[in-house]
Amino acid sequence: MVRVLGIDPGLQRTGWGVIDLTDNRMRHVANGVVTSTQTLSLAERLDQLHSGLMDVIATWTPDEAAVEETFVNKNPVSTLKLGQARGVALLAPARCGIPVTEYTPNAVKKTVVGAGHAAKQQVEMMVSTLLPGCQIHGADAADALAVAICHAQHAGTRALAGITAGPGRKYR
Amino acid sequence: MVRVLGIDPGLQRTGWGVIDLTDNRMRHVANGVVTSTQTLSLAERLDQLHSGLMDVIATWTPDEAAVEETFVNKNPVSTLKLGQARGVALLAPARCGIPVTEYTPNAVKKTVVGAGHAAKQQVEMMVSTLLPGCQIHGADAADALAVAICHAQHAGTRALAGITAGPGRKYR
Repeated sequence: MVRVLGIDPGLQRTGWGVIDLTDNRMRHVANGVVTSTQTLSLAERLDQLHSGLMDVIATWTPDEAAVEETFVNKNPVSTLKLGQARGVALLAPARCGIPVTEYTPNAVKKTVVGAGHAAKQQVEMMVSTLLPGCQIHGADAADALAVAICHAQHAGTRALAGITAGPGRKYR
Repeated sequence: MVRVLGIDPGLQRTGWGVIDLTDNRMRHVANGVVTSTQTLSLAERLDQLHSGLMDVIATWTPDEAAVEETFVNKNPVSTLKLGQARGVALLAPARCGIPVTEYTPNAVKKTVVGAGHAAKQQVEMMVSTLLPGCQIHGADAADALAVAICHAQHAGTRALAGITAGPGRKYR
């Protein structure tokens, strides 16, 4: 069994989702959103995101993590803001020795919906179908579960190809 | 006495510099550069930067931190990369409860050189003049000392205005 943590980073709201992968079968474990307080300083907000993600990792003890590669925005200020949140999202699992794999938004959508350009609602609906019975805590948590599913399916393919999956292993 | 840590963030090289401010007089304490290994994954590189900065904070126990506001690049990929390193640079002092103030590159240059648009060498030369006897470990460490000097001079002004400086206080 491999437990995968998916993260969808954002300064305001960082989605997270945990799934278990056993013999190519996925099971939903938990999902949620870590938020930061807009009135605090940027450094304090990043600290809130970091603490929240460290709590998630301590509670759900994932073996591997997957983070969506950021869509580079035309607005450089937004790109910088997202980059800062993303740095913290990548750091939290890395600090715990959990290997982190990055997937492009298109790769995630292609794996989950079957097409590279899918609407947000389509992603959420497919996540619900692939993980029956799971209660999704909003769009950011759905995106985080989607990247976890994407990683699990890639891990499944690797396992079929005879590549060992498990903690400590890196997929590039 | 207030001890100030200045940070100039970068994924490849993050400069840092520590100075003491006593009654409006500055004294150089230490400076250096934290680097990350290009062959590692982004998450591992951010972990290297984070560990390096946490070591600096543990060794030099600053009361306050100052980080240069990032120049938003025309290249969005560079902006994103810098944003990720910057998130980690802001997080390290925040995790230790050290208040972090941000200064624009122009504010730093204006304080240190006297003009908003100064060449890199001018900054390094002025840092050497303002902190006599200090051995500067390259341009990134010089920039970090410059942002620390900028913060110290603003703190000096605040002190003259009767605003208490010290650990735990936030400047916005």
